[in-house]
Amino acid sequence: MTTPLRLGIAGLGTVGAGVVKILAGSGELIAARAGRPIEVVAVSARSRDKDRGVDLSGYDWEDDPVALAKRPDVDVFVELMGGSDGPAKAATEAALARGAHVVTANKAMLAHHGQALAELAEGNGAVLRFEAAVAGGIPVVKALTEGLAGNRITRVMGVMNGTCNYILTRMETAGLPYDEVFAEANALGYLEADPTLDVGGIDAGHKLSLLAAIAFGTRVAFDQMTLEGIERISIEDIRQAADMGYRIKLLGVAQRTADGLEQRMMPCLVPATSPLGQLEGGTNMVVLEGDAVGQIVLRGAGAGAGPTASAVLSDLIDVARNFRLPTFGQAATTLADAPPSQSAAPAPYYLRMALTDKPGALAKVASVLGEAGVSINRMRQYSHDAGSAPVLIVTHACARADLDAALDALPGTGVVETAPVALRIEEV
Amino acid sequence: MTTPLRLGIAGLGTVGAGVVKILAGSGELIAARAGRPIEVVAVSARSRDKDRGVDLSGYDWEDDPVALAKRPDVDVFVELMGGSDGPAKAATEAALARGAHVVTANKAMLAHHGQALAELAEGNGAVLRFEAAVAGGIPVVKALTEGLAGNRITRVMGVMNGTCNYILTRMETAGLPYDEVFAEANALGYLEADPTLDVGGIDAGHKLSLLAAIAFGTRVAFDQMTLEGIERISIEDIRQAADMGYRIKLLGVAQRTADGLEQRMMPCLVPATSPLGQLEGGTNMVVLEGDAVGQIVLRGAGAGAGPTASAVLSDLIDVARNFRLPTFGQAATTLADAPPSQSAAPAPYYLRMALTDKPGALAKVASVLGEAGVSINRMRQYSHDAGSAPVLIVTHACARADLDAALDALPGTGVVETAPVALRIEEV
Repeated sequence: MTTPLRLGIAGLGTVGAGVVKILAGSGELIAARAGRPIEVVAVSARSRDKDRGVDLSGYDWEDDPVALAKRPDVDVFVELMGGSDGPAKAATEAALARGAHVVTANKAMLAHHGQALAELAEGNGAVLRFEAAVAGGIPVVKALTEGLAGNRITRVMGVMNGTCNYILTRMETAGLPYDEVFAEANALGYLEADPTLDVGGIDAGHKLSLLAAIAFGTRVAFDQMTLEGIERISIEDIRQAADMGYRIKLLGVAQRTADGLEQRMMPCLVPATSPLGQLEGGTNMVVLEGDAVGQIVLRGAGAGAGPTASAVLSDLIDVARNFRLPTFGQAATTLADAPPSQSAAPAPYYLRMALTDKPGALAKVASVLGEAGVSINRMRQYSHDAGSAPVLIVTHACARADLDAALDALPGTGVVETAPVALRIEEV
Repeated sequence: MTTPLRLGIAGLGTVGAGVVKILAGSGELIAARAGRPIEVVAVSARSRDKDRGVDLSGYDWEDDPVALAKRPDVDVFVELMGGSDGPAKAATEAALARGAHVVTANKAMLAHHGQALAELAEGNGAVLRFEAAVAGGIPVVKALTEGLAGNRITRVMGVMNGTCNYILTRMETAGLPYDEVFAEANALGYLEADPTLDVGGIDAGHKLSLLAAIAFGTRVAFDQMTLEGIERISIEDIRQAADMGYRIKLLGVAQRTADGLEQRMMPCLVPATSPLGQLEGGTNMVVLEGDAVGQIVLRGAGAGAGPTASAVLSDLIDVARNFRLPTFGQAATTLADAPPSQSAAPAPYYLRMALTDKPGALAKVASVLGEAGVSINRMRQYSHDAGSAPVLIVTHACARADLDAALDALPGTGVVETAPVALRIEEV
């Protein structure tokens, strides 16, 4: 089997250019492993003239990615444009509709249209693979879809947005406020064009929704995920957490519960000594738990040209080796509809709020919490200058619904100055 | 493709029984993922009567594993007997010779006969897979062979013998001497029948040799590995290492150097804050480094019925999905012969020795080291009762050959009472 596998690459940003570079530099090694050469036939991007540091003269150029996807000499359409809809989706559909394979790094497209695209692929005998869409260079889609395929997966957790982890780590180590580190990250080019994709937890949520579909055999249900960003985390929160032996991470958790599928992506306190707590900077980590294997932890670079291109290459080599499997590890038509769980496990919570500096303010807060069934484990009021008194509370394990009831009732006390920050304490 | 994949399982210890249990309990889920049922047809083990906690009444029994391997109704021979030669090898050869696939957990057999068995498999159109042979439940063979297949691998490191890591961790946390913890581990059933397989580094060395073959496209060369066990590590070493910010791990390192392939499995000092340094108890960790992906860290249970069975199932599901790839990731006939490297990178070393309590003893040692070109970074002599003086030395980075010359010359000083413990300090 020495027929080359022929690629059409749409999108020549850092990842697309990275794939071209690796194929040019390691082509022989990759052919030895794949059992056949992998060759770029044609490429497409917004601007033909931009210098990308790679020689594109040997490849055909297509202005229109859909035209690229339809070329009969393209065996695999490599979608690296991004965007949940528009040209990325149109071109992916065009490729799959004619039975061409698609390898993509596009988490947004799959989070929103994964079910339809998987059905289209499988209906046409094509594979649709997305290792590069989740946690960059970490081969986590493969680990879950293949490596742990003998397990009933019980829980998936992950820190999967390097930018958020960078911001939180930098706030802690440099003692800088969120706004300043955010500006810094922006200047360094770490943020998406729409930064709420990163700091709002959306990008990481997209990734978690894809892993959850594989793990639990359910349809991708990104719209059912509980999402919270890191925008309201302050240095004070980070310091208080550290003082109690925790670190704050934008943590994704997906698990089956008695009544459905729990999916949440939110800042949480995790033990500082746990692998997740020790994660620094832009590194990603995914924790997979299965009934047979126990806990597997995977760690690596979650973004960047090299790591993401490495993941794209892994999918391409799989295709070249004629590995054929459904997008989410079992036939798309067999994926179940899982209702969002209403019964997330109780957990302790960290609360920070500013109270009016009046006698009895603290008592009023404690009373509202108690009435909602939320009992207090620790409470601390800080020294302050005037007017407003910052207060920190750690609850005993409680149901999120009870906590929410308390949070809803707090403004009625007239002593809470700003909406409290409430962070789940996750024992990972 | 709903034809069942039919298994013959030889060896019904904890792992074999674990595979049978998982197939009985999760058969439907596994069939959905594999695209076809996976069924046990026949089994073989030493004793037919032993209670293994699983119902074997539905399967044919074969007294002879070779007969099992030759059964025409067995598509995959699952070799879980162990032993580098004997029945395991004979039965594996019998299966492969007739083009039946083999899935095995047998690191010793592959470390010694991997090349011949891979050639036999590939010559007969069969696959020979061994995920369970390396690092238990961690899908590291898959990560290296497939997930990172687009990379030139630059280094592979691993703590892959849970028993050794348990012993070293337990010595540290309980403050117990090696002999006592060894006896404890033995009583707990953690040790192989021949304990030097574990504490001598042989078992972990077998695993490293298999990863090195995949990583560097070389023939398995276990016999060229530098091997050292943990038998001479004392509590004192562990305490001194901790005092300097290090922990002692039985660490495997494989990398290409200018003149060949470096493979070593030996106790090393690693930074206590590194992922490898933080590893506790029986957990395994593998670090994979590639030119595109950077560093990937994988962590999980390295042994036990569930984790090892999980790895076996992964291989079986791959076979059921018709994934076909060469044993070591590229055709066995294309694997290169790599000479053992003579140029391991210089590193600092930790030395501990007992000196005769005479004036000038320390000066004599320092002089021998200096003459060999080994310069001293730190040196410390401990308080002691009488006669013998324990001394700790940390060298600057030096070539192992220079250090060995010094170690060879030390007895000639007449002041060194026991052969020094010399441990490499590895900056992971």
